[in-house]
Amino acid sequence: MKALLLVAHGSRRESSNQEVRDLAARLGEHAGDRFHHVDCAFLEIAEPLIPDGIQRCIDAGADQVVVLPYFLSAGRHVVEDIPNDVAIKQAEHPGIDIHIAPYLGSSAGVIDLLLASAS
Amino acid sequence: MKALLLVAHGSRRESSNQEVRDLAARLGEHAGDRFHHVDCAFLEIAEPLIPDGIQRCIDAGADQVVVLPYFLSAGRHVVEDIPNDVAIKQAEHPGIDIHIAPYLGSSAGVIDLLLASAS
Repeated sequence: MKALLLVAHGSRRESSNQEVRDLAARLGEHAGDRFHHVDCAFLEIAEPLIPDGIQRCIDAGADQVVVLPYFLSAGRHVVEDIPNDVAIKQAEHPGIDIHIAPYLGSSAGVIDLLLASAS
Repeated sequence: MKALLLVAHGSRRESSNQEVRDLAARLGEHAGDRFHHVDCAFLEIAEPLIPDGIQRCIDAGADQVVVLPYFLSAGRHVVEDIPNDVAIKQAEHPGIDIHIAPYLGSSAGVIDLLLASAS
């Protein structure tokens, strides 16, 4: 069973966190049979934090968890903090495949999306 | 003449700012005849700042400037700070059409892009 965990920074503005939760819900609606469980988690400030979010996926029955960073640039959060959180859960659950997908800003498709938004 | 100004937050990590500059360059390569001038600007920390970025577009001959927020959520920067910067330049150049496109995170296409990144 495959799970997708959308990971955002977390904001003191609860409406920004809610935007992420709403986006995860829409991802779940569009995932078809690619992901059986879709959830979100936050690096800091908001809940669930990343380790708890990964645990929720495992508790839901996932044997594969794709962590998807909802970030635009390869800053410290993407390069160090998210991998560190993921490594903790990997060590706890060696039988579960937990891996990190490319962060949103690195996607080649972002070019077309930006041009579509600008038109 | 139509210009596109990609606006990011700006980071103390110069490599993050360079990612935005590289993205603007790729946008320019893919813009075809939709935009005759493509540049980037930053809300704070990095240069050029937004008013200077808009001015560069005008100096390049633009009579229409689309400001495209490279942001994922509708926080204070998107809702207040960018519009405030744009309003200053609108007041200075009433003959130029300067408007703000929807921020990246609000694009419906972000769902498909995230699912593609996760696969």
